[in-house]
Amino acid sequence: MSFIYRRTANYYETDQMGVVHHSNHIRYFEEARIAFMKSIGCDVAQMEKEGIIIPNVDAYARYIIPILFGDTAEIEIKLTKFTGAVMRYEYTARLGGNIAATGHTEHCFVNSEFRPMSLRKKFPEYYRRLKDNISTEE
Amino acid sequence: MSFIYRRTANYYETDQMGVVHHSNHIRYFEEARIAFMKSIGCDVAQMEKEGIIIPNVDAYARYIIPILFGDTAEIEIKLTKFTGAVMRYEYTARLGGNIAATGHTEHCFVNSEFRPMSLRKKFPEYYRRLKDNISTEE
Amino acid sequence: MSFIYRRTANYYETDQMGVVHHSNHIRYFEEARIAFMKSIGCDVAQMEKEGIIIPNVDAYARYIIPILFGDTAEIEIKLTKFTGAVMRYEYTARLGGNIAATGHTEHCFVNSEFRPMSLRKKFPEYYRRLKDNISTEE
Amino acid sequence: MSFIYRRTANYYETDQMGVVHHSNHIRYFEEARIAFMKSIGCDVAQMEKEGIIIPNVDAYARYIIPILFGDTAEIEIKLTKFTGAVMRYEYTARLGGNIAATGHTEHCFVNSEFRPMSLRKKFPEYYRRLKDNISTEE
Repeated sequence: MSFIYRRTANYYETDQMGVVHHSNHIRYFEEARIAFMKSIGCDVAQMEKEGIIIPNVDAYARYIIPILFGDTAEIEIKLTKFTGAVMRYEYTARLGGNIAATGHTEHCFVNSEFRPMSLRKKFPEYYRRLKDNISTEE
Repeated sequence: MSFIYRRTANYYETDQMGVVHHSNHIRYFEEARIAFMKSIGCDVAQMEKEGIIIPNVDAYARYIIPILFGDTAEIEIKLTKFTGAVMRYEYTARLGGNIAATGHTEHCFVNSEFRPMSLRKKFPEYYRRLKDNISTEE
Repeated sequence: MSFIYRRTANYYETDQMGVVHHSNHIRYFEEARIAFMKSIGCDVAQMEKEGIIIPNVDAYARYIIPILFGDTAEIEIKLTKFTGAVMRYEYTARLGGNIAATGHTEHCFVNSEFRPMSLRKKFPEYYRRLKDNISTEE
Repeated sequence: MSFIYRRTANYYETDQMGVVHHSNHIRYFEEARIAFMKSIGCDVAQMEKEGIIIPNVDAYARYIIPILFGDTAEIEIKLTKFTGAVMRYEYTARLGGNIAATGHTEHCFVNSEFRPMSLRKKFPEYYRRLKDNISTEE
């Protein structure tokens, strides 16, 4: 299973190199992840209201083709790991079919005191939805 | 009384025009305000812990000379109005003595439920410190 | 004539107040302006390639209702003034029909050396398109 | 050799989780790199004027302790690889002596047409300064 998130680059996301600043790819990845999660019934806004905070454990991006102002990147996202306590995503951003950037992020789940927790017992519905959407393809 | 906040422009704050994007001046103004407030004993981080949230009512910037990557702007800030419920600041950003931008912001005080409140009775210390630092000069 | 730009607030646009940071409204306004301009045949990316740079002269936002993560704001934009050398826009951001923020921006046109210029003689097509789309209603 | 860059977190860099948004660490790393480069006579603003553009090849951050508004992180940066065509940096951000985040970035050098190049022959002074400041310690 894969999910595509389309994102057009804004003017203020460029830098004086004339391309989207590399920190923004990390933000695009977040947008893609949140859109994907919503699509499988895991609305991050709602989850936060229920006390589930989802910080990043890490974030990586590799830059291949610069994204320009006005470009629409197609960001493919896959959930490649989910244990209840940790999840991992992989991202491929394409411009016109060519890979512009790749990346991955890892996340944990914490409560409102920032204590790590597992979704398995406390939030079985969210647990199942994420579990059901792990990408099995290579 | 006036307060000067020095800020060097970062690479990622530029856009493809080759200058600091205009939205960042609004952020520089916030930095200047928070530094000023700290200097008079109104630490915004501490105030938030005590339940005082300080949203913007408005924000304005006028752009005269572009700020370039690596430039250090001197941002002069004055508290020009403070009623306990509302405060207003005026900003002048200079580059080498020349005015690069001007602006103003207005703020109110709300509690953690985003209900407006006055500092006067509930927080007399903060009230006094702000009151004592209103700029009287033109 | 008016133009509506829809924008859903991203997670990274919030601050610890739990609302979209006020500097981002200025960015939303830019997105709305660029979408509007494209819709009338004034593609900012293309205009820059032709040597037309469009800096802000000023920017103002007034904050009425906080925009929350996941909210979709409808930003109505009107071109209220255009002389060839200067243009002015007014913005009204709505959430569920209620006004969340208002604002305005003014812009000039400069060449690649940042010298002010008028579109009238050098770029009559762009001049006409903007002139034809000035909002006449109050 | 190592270089320390101190950076206090701004309010607008926080998100509704109440901590500095993870994309900003990537920006802090850039600030640290540019400050380090300046300290060894490689002023990025000047280098760009001479036609040396320095895009990111990749960027990685690992998040250990959240950085809060007002925190001053000490970011240690080391140049761990430099070939003339490519350079790599490693970063350790500390809060009160504790590691808050780590990361690394890789960069190449391109000319104004975004064609890869080596500094070795064309820019021997910059080449030497970077070569002389490669970190040899593990």
